[in-house]
Order: sequence, then structure tokens, then C-alpha cells
Amino acid sequence: MIGVAINANLDILDMHGAAFATHAPELTILRPEEVADPQAVEFALTFRPPDDAFTPYPALKAVVSVAAGVDAILSCPSLPKDVPVLRVEDDDQALQMAGFAAFHVLWHHRRMDLHLEDQANEVWNRPISGRSPSERRVGVMGFGLMGRAVAKAIAALGYPTASLSRSLPEQPEPGVEHFVDRDRDAFLARSDILINVLPLTKATHGVMDADLFAALPQGACVVNLGRGEHLDEGALLAALESGQIAGASLDAFENEPLAEGHPFWSHPRVLVTPHTASAPESKGVVLSIKDGLRRLSDGDIGDDRLSRGY
Amino acid sequence: MIGVAINANLDILDMHGAAFATHAPELTILRPEEVADPQAVEFALTFRPPDDAFTPYPALKAVVSVAAGVDAILSCPSLPKDVPVLRVEDDDQALQMAGFAAFHVLWHHRRMDLHLEDQANEVWNRPISGRSPSERRVGVMGFGLMGRAVAKAIAALGYPTASLSRSLPEQPEPGVEHFVDRDRDAFLARSDILINVLPLTKATHGVMDADLFAALPQGACVVNLGRGEHLDEGALLAALESGQIAGASLDAFENEPLAEGHPFWSHPRVLVTPHTASAPESKGVVLSIKDGLRRLSDGDIGDDRLSRGY
Repeated sequence: MIGVAINANLDILDMHGAAFATHAPELTILRPEEVADPQAVEFALTFRPPDDAFTPYPALKAVVSVAAGVDAILSCPSLPKDVPVLRVEDDDQALQMAGFAAFHVLWHHRRMDLHLEDQANEVWNRPISGRSPSERRVGVMGFGLMGRAVAKAIAALGYPTASLSRSLPEQPEPGVEHFVDRDRDAFLARSDILINVLPLTKATHGVMDADLFAALPQGACVVNLGRGEHLDEGALLAALESGQIAGASLDAFENEPLAEGHPFWSHPRVLVTPHTASAPESKGVVLSIKDGLRRLSDGDIGDDRLSRGY
Repeated sequence: MIGVAINANLDILDMHGAAFATHAPELTILRPEEVADPQAVEFALTFRPPDDAFTPYPALKAVVSVAAGVDAILSCPSLPKDVPVLRVEDDDQALQMAGFAAFHVLWHHRRMDLHLEDQANEVWNRPISGRSPSERRVGVMGFGLMGRAVAKAIAALGYPTASLSRSLPEQPEPGVEHFVDRDRDAFLARSDILINVLPLTKATHGVMDADLFAALPQGACVVNLGRGEHLDEGALLAALESGQIAGASLDAFENEPLAEGHPFWSHPRVLVTPHTASAPESKGVVLSIKDGLRRLSDGDIGDDRLSRGY
């Protein structure tokens, strides 16, 4: 099967070429300039496609993201409407996300920022209480592969945990209370720490806005592990200023790298990380893509998997 | 049933009196000066008993720690030899410990210290890779209530996890590799992040010493959530200096509060917290004690529970 790797910011074959050769030798993956017969190209690998990326290839059977997110692909003008978009679904990446989310829940609940400050001042300041996970209700927005892994891990640490998604999961996660969008206010009202792992779509663009912050309990903390475009940065700064939001962990930003001088860098209640929550390893990328293409050619891809790309 | 609350550093009834009244009204708990008939006192509540704490009470059936640790009780000269020592076993406290341990695993694996430094310098420094939990093997020393909760949580986050204990657990924990003391070197050699939650006994005093550090992989990190007396502080500083140990999280110290000017405070690769990993809530303390006394009077306390106190 012949594919083409097209990407605007990074060379996909530099990153994953060796893993494709090892784990999927049956796939031939070319750079655009190596393609002799565009009719023979059956799939495109990309993450951030140029506007005209897909135009030369009339026989595409799939567009395949080399990452979990497909938002840049879905907004590409040359994306053929009737071609399925596959994404990487990697259990290892989901565990990375779960661990990173757990870190931030503990960071906010246990006020690790104050412990670091105390250490810098050589002050021994032992809290009398405030350690039980039952004190903080955690809400996870998004319940795909990432959301489930995050919610499962947080619940296993004893935090009362809920999820929010468009529809109820076919398989409920034990120990997690599931909310759907129409019950969003009830979900937010019980979320002392809110974690976003939604995919970026038109419907989720700007979802973390002033209304959402106002619907959380006063003093809630927010953790954005999704996309920068999910977050209204000005609304968050205002909510931090008013005390409605007590703290934030932000891993994704509207403009990356985050600009020098951006108020998030120096905000005492914001923890900034450089879009590092999770990333699939090359082997996981290749195995997931291989599996997706095989299932696609077998007609074995359920609506669920495809629909998440749309 | 009549008990006496005897403690050197904190007043147990100030801390837990209300919870005893609510959750165990059948227990009468007196301060020493309120005891009219020492013969009628059947149990003593304590954590840090004065040397002569137990001498006045000839009819004690149990000495009950109000915490998970019993080391100060076991080293008390007036402790009657034939009286069982009970400890608090609180699932909520074990979850606190699990969450705190998970935080430190992520702290070291994901180099959150560098992210904080980058934020302070307004530098966007996205790591290319280094996120998969499969990259760090975690070892947990101690496999009682705490050790099991810690190992279970870390394994659930995808880290290859092993435990070390005197004997193999009757119920193995799925996903955790169990080692016993005679295989200690093999356990240490595969532990990139080592977490100590051992009880403090004569056998475990000073267990984190130069030999232990040398037996870990070069560049390992250590997390002490046990007692300060488990750790040879000078040996750790030397191992950090040589690079054998790359980082440490320390929650307990030989002398608490940690003295001003102690090198741990300002060490760039040591995270100091003020003995705050876990503490039982009053309700958990009372319910655990009530259960322990009931089982003791029913003859329903297994060797396992009692032996851990010895």
C-alpha cells in the first residue's frame, strides 16, 4: 500500500520513518516529490497539512493523522469530504495523559506550589489537615481514549470523579459518574478540579470561557490538556483575578510557543508546561496506523472510531 | 470500654475527641488526670508516649496508635511485652499516600522541576520525547496497606512496578512484581525510581544508605515517604553529589522540623515536604480503632495485623 507523508511543520519520515520500516514494512511511504504516480497513492499521513496538501491525490482512501488530534486536518480546505480521517489511538499515550493529569490534580489539591515556596524560604509549614482525596471532586471533559484513561486514573486515587461527553459511553467506567452535555451545569457545579481533554472541533472551540468558569464552584482549579483554542485566555485571567478560579495548569496555548511576556508565564497561580502532556512514541504511532488501515480495508472500522475524526 | 489518652506532643482528645463522641460513643476515653481507677483502663491511645506512659495501668488489653506508625510506641520502655499494639489502618490515608507517591513519580520522570524553571525564565522548551511510563521502573519498599496502595496506583499509570517486602504477599497485586528481602539487589537494580513506605523498625532503621544507593541504577531517583530514620542523610547528599542519585523527594527527616540551613532545603535536586504525605482524618482514625478493639475482643485479629505492630 502506497502512502504520501505531507506535513507543514515537521518531516514525518524523519520522525517515524525508521519505525515504519521496522513495524510496517508492507507500507510504502513517499515524500510528495518522490511520488511518480499520484493515482497510486492510497493514503496520506499528516498532522498539519498545507492548504493544498490533498489536491494531487485523487485515489485517497484515508487521511491518517500521526497524532491523536485531527483538528488541523479537518480544517484543511483540500480535505476530500468522503475520505475517512484516522487518528492515532495509543494506549501508552493515554497513560502519559493520565499520569500528567494525576500530577496536576495533586499539584492543586495538595498545594504543592506552597510547599515549593516554603522550601525556597526554608520554612517548615505542616498542614493540619486537607489531604483526603474525598475533598476534591474532579471533572473530566471528554471521554474518548484520553478522557477514559484520565478519569480512571483519578478515580483510582480516590477522587470523586465525573466525566462529560456528548453521549453516555457504551461501557461505563466503574467509579466514574458520567454526565452528558445537556447536564453540563450539574457536571460543572460539582467539579472542584476541571480537566479538559476534549478534541478540538467547532463545537468545543472556546469551551473554557467565562460562562464555564462561573458555573464551577468558587475556588475551582482548571487543567487544560486539550488545545489552546479550547480556552478563552482573557476570561481565565479575569476569573483568576476575581478568585472564582483559584489556579490553573495549562499545557496548550492559542499561540505556541507561548509568547515572551504573556501574563501566564509569570502568574503565581498558573503552571505553564510546553504542550508536553502526552505524545505517542514512534512505535505506537506506526502500530496504530497499521491497525487503522487494516481495519479500514477490512471494513472493520466502527462508526465510533471514524466519527471521532469528524 | 474505658481507655486513656496519653501522648507527649499533641493532645489526642483535642484532635479526635469529637470524632470519638460521634462514631464510637461506647468508648470512654479519659485523660490520665481523669482516671479514678487505673485497674479499669483497658486500652491506651497514644502516638508518642512518654517513657512511663503505661506503668500506671496494669489491666491494659491493647495499646492503640492513633496513626499508621507505631515506632515510638514500640520503643517506649514501659510498653508491656504481652499487650498487642494496634495501628490505624485507614483506606483513605492509603489513597493519600498513593496520590502523593504518584505525584513524585511524575515529578521525577517528567522533570517537572525543569518545566517550573523554564516557566520562571519564560522559556518554551518542549521535550522531543521522554514521556512513556515504560521508561521508568518504579520500586516500592514496603507492602502493607500503604505499599500496596502506592504500588497499585503507580502500576495503574503504566509504570513497570515492583514491591519489596519480608515475605511474599498472600494476595499478589495484579501488575506488580513482588520481591522478598533476599532478592533485594535484583529489586534495587531494576528500580529507576525508589519509593520508601516501610514501617520504622530496628531492621529498617537506616535502610536508605550508601549501599542501597549504589545498588540502584545510576541516575535513579528516591522518594522517602516513611520515616527520617530510614534515611542516611549524609549518604544521600554524597550520592546526589556523585550523580549516582539524580533526584530525591523527602517528606520525613531525622529531626523535624528540618533545621534552617540544612543542605536539603536549598539542594536543586531535592524536593522537601513537611511530613505531609498522608494523615488519617479523625473519622478514619476512630473507625479503625473501633474496628481493631472489636476484633481484638472477638479474638478476630489475625497474626498479620498484630505482627505488623511488632
